[in-house]
Parts: sequence; C-alpha cells; structure tokens
Amino acid sequence: MAYCYDFPRPALTVDCVVFGLDEQNSLKVLLIRRNLPPFKGEWALPGGFVRPDETLEQSARRELGEETGVKDIFLEQLYTFGAVERDPRDRIITVAYYALVNLTEHTINATTDADEAKWFPIDALPSLAFDHLHIFQQALQRLKGKLRYEPIGFELLPQKFPLSQLQHLYETVLGKPLDKRNFRKKILKMGLLTALEEWQTDVAHRAARLYAFDPEQYQELKQQGFNFEL
Amino acid sequence: MAYCYDFPRPALTVDCVVFGLDEQNSLKVLLIRRNLPPFKGEWALPGGFVRPDETLEQSARRELGEETGVKDIFLEQLYTFGAVERDPRDRIITVAYYALVNLTEHTINATTDADEAKWFPIDALPSLAFDHLHIFQQALQRLKGKLRYEPIGFELLPQKFPLSQLQHLYETVLGKPLDKRNFRKKILKMGLLTALEEWQTDVAHRAARLYAFDPEQYQELKQQGFNFEL
Repeated sequence: MAYCYDFPRPALTVDCVVFGLDEQNSLKVLLIRRNLPPFKGEWALPGGFVRPDETLEQSARRELGEETGVKDIFLEQLYTFGAVERDPRDRIITVAYYALVNLTEHTINATTDADEAKWFPIDALPSLAFDHLHIFQQALQRLKGKLRYEPIGFELLPQKFPLSQLQHLYETVLGKPLDKRNFRKKILKMGLLTALEEWQTDVAHRAARLYAFDPEQYQELKQQGFNFEL
Repeated sequence: MAYCYDFPRPALTVDCVVFGLDEQNSLKVLLIRRNLPPFKGEWALPGGFVRPDETLEQSARRELGEETGVKDIFLEQLYTFGAVERDPRDRIITVAYYALVNLTEHTINATTDADEAKWFPIDALPSLAFDHLHIFQQALQRLKGKLRYEPIGFELLPQKFPLSQLQHLYETVLGKPLDKRNFRKKILKMGLLTALEEWQTDVAHRAARLYAFDPEQYQELKQQGFNFEL
C-alpha cells in the first residue's frame, strides 16, 4: 500500500539521548546496534519513525521502549535536526529528546528492532551512525547548561545523602572538579536542601551529615529556575 | 503529480514568532492574515511547509520573507509542536522559530502568500489560527527566560545609550518594573558595558552618562551564558 500526497513530504523521526548515572557516579549514554541498513551493525541513538496517531513524545517513548526496554522516564525535547543530507536514505528530519536517569533502576532489553542495547561511558563512545554524534554532543552541552539554571538530583540520588554525593553528581555531569567549600556554600544558600539530624554510618572517615531535598522548594526552583554560578 | 511513500508521513511546517521593539520600546509581534483555508481571513504566525531541498531554518526565513517582507534576521529554534489534532487538515507538525528585532529597521510587505502582515502589541493580540497562541506564549516565556542567561540589546539599542534605556528594554520584555539601583549595579558588574566620556544632550532633565556594549565581552557572555538575577 502506498500513501500519496500532492507535495513531497520529508520523513520524520525521533531520537533519544538517554544519559545514565551508574553506581560509581560515572556518566553513560544508551546506544543500540542497528539491525537494518543504512549503517547496519553500527551503534546509534535509539529512535525511529513518528506514527500519525502519536505525539512526538509518545513516539520517542515507544521507540525507546521497543529498542532498549527502558520505560517510564522523563524525556525533554532537545532540538530538531534538519540538515538536508543528514540521512542517506531520504530527506529525514529528526526531533531529538534527552533524559538523565539512574542507570541502576533501568533494565536493558533490546527487542526485535535492535540487535543490542548498551550503556557506553560518554568518554568512550563507538563511532555513531548518521549525525548522532552531533546530536549526542548537543544533548551533553544542554545537560551541562541545565545544571546552572535548574536543580537536579531528586530522581538520581538516594533520599538521604551527604553533600559530597551531590557535588560528585555535578562534577560528573560537568566533567570537572568543583571547589568543595564554594559548592557547599552556594547549594545550601538556595534553600533546596534540608539538613537532617542524621549522619553517615559505616564509614571509615568522619561521618558526614545527611541531607534531603525539600520537595516543594525543589519543584518551585525547577519552575522558576535559579542562578548557580559553578 | 502525486508523491507516494510506503508509510504515512506527517506534513512538516515552520512557524515564526518575531518580536519587535518599536520607538516607544513597546513589544510587538508580527502576524499575517491568512488568505487560504483553514482559518481563512484570520490572523496567524507567518510560516508554511518545509521544502525537501532546504534546512528548517532556511524554510523559516523563506516563509517569513514571502509572507511579511521581513528578511535578514537571526532566528532561533524554539520548539517542535506535534499534538495530534493541532491542524484540522491533516497531521501537521511544526518547528517554531523566534527572534527579537528592532521593528523600525524592518519594512512590512505582505506578498501573495498572505493578505496582510502587521505588528500587534503583545497585550492586544487578535484571536489566532491553529495553536498559534500557545506557540506565541511559549516564545514569550523563552524570551523572558533568556534575559537572565544571555546579554540582549546589541542589535536593538543605538550604539550609545543611557543605562535607563537598557533598563527599559528589560522591563518591556519582562513586562514589569525593575529597581533602578539594583539593575545598574548588576548590569555594570558584568563587564558588558563600556562607560563613555559622553553624556546625553538635548534633555530637559540632568544629562545621563552614555554607555556602549563591549563587543568582545558581549559575544563571550553570549556563548558562556551568565547569571542575572532580576
């Protein structure tokens, strides 16, 4: 069966850049190995064609689920990539989404649409199909930028954590060390965290105080944005 | 002639939200009156279908030029809107772009694609076709958010200006008054402006000092972003 239109139409896909933090707080990205041409056998971002009856975000969730088994994550739209020659098959425009998740909470399960799905450390990526390296780089840049304007960590850290763990999360995403005193001073000033009357246990070094996010303040700052000079 | 594909394809359009500042520093948006159904005779954002041989941004520039006569402006991608029922004709997904320009530098000239093109004050919009009110609102929110993270004004203000004029620009976009002392202190701290040894002339009140943007610093802050608590 063929679908015919009066004017030529570009094809439309979605692609997902899912960043995952592992137990060692190292930053990874979820890739799939393609089982169809073009770029058959090569690694790529999970994604695929948008169906007429689904929104762009539904499409991104469906493709991500089908190709990697990863479900129920909060995807944000990144950017729409429309360079004329970006896909060798045809004029194909892609709407990219991105997310940052706790890797340990998601089971990878590649299905019929991909040969394999796997987390790769962001500093050791294989060569990627299409313009997917470019899309990945844009997503990483956006994620780094976001840290300055929005709180992160609520979905990534345990309920109670020492400040060093939150600092480590920031350092991982930014890919650079931060000054400890400065970080503590600034993060506490935001009123984002509640200092608990609890301390670390089972540590060899001096036990650090534990903190928790204030959920209301967290949501409010997520809406309003803030200014976190890092 | 018909263009046929193995799978159904949504149609793809671009839409432009062009904000303009007029001589009174009031904020307007550029709309066109549609001369084709659906919504014939109603006001809408300038835009149209993406052609196979042009990038999304080229498409946005072309449509804007054809429908309004406005050319040579810097468009930024806003967001891609893909709600399933957003267009009564068909499944049509639109990539929205936005810009902020000095209205006095652009001549409006509606051509065959639109009956009329006109600047409307943002607080007195007519009813808009499709989901264009929603797109406009998203663009306005983005523009307001941008002020906090990026310098603006270089393309909008004269080469030399008193600080009050820059403050007025911020107040116009934000739609609220700002504290004068606070604004001056913060904006000067950024190193964005060069204080000139020149003062206003021909003013009834006490002549204010004139400032100019430091072009290098401006570009650097545009790249890096900054934190401007307003």
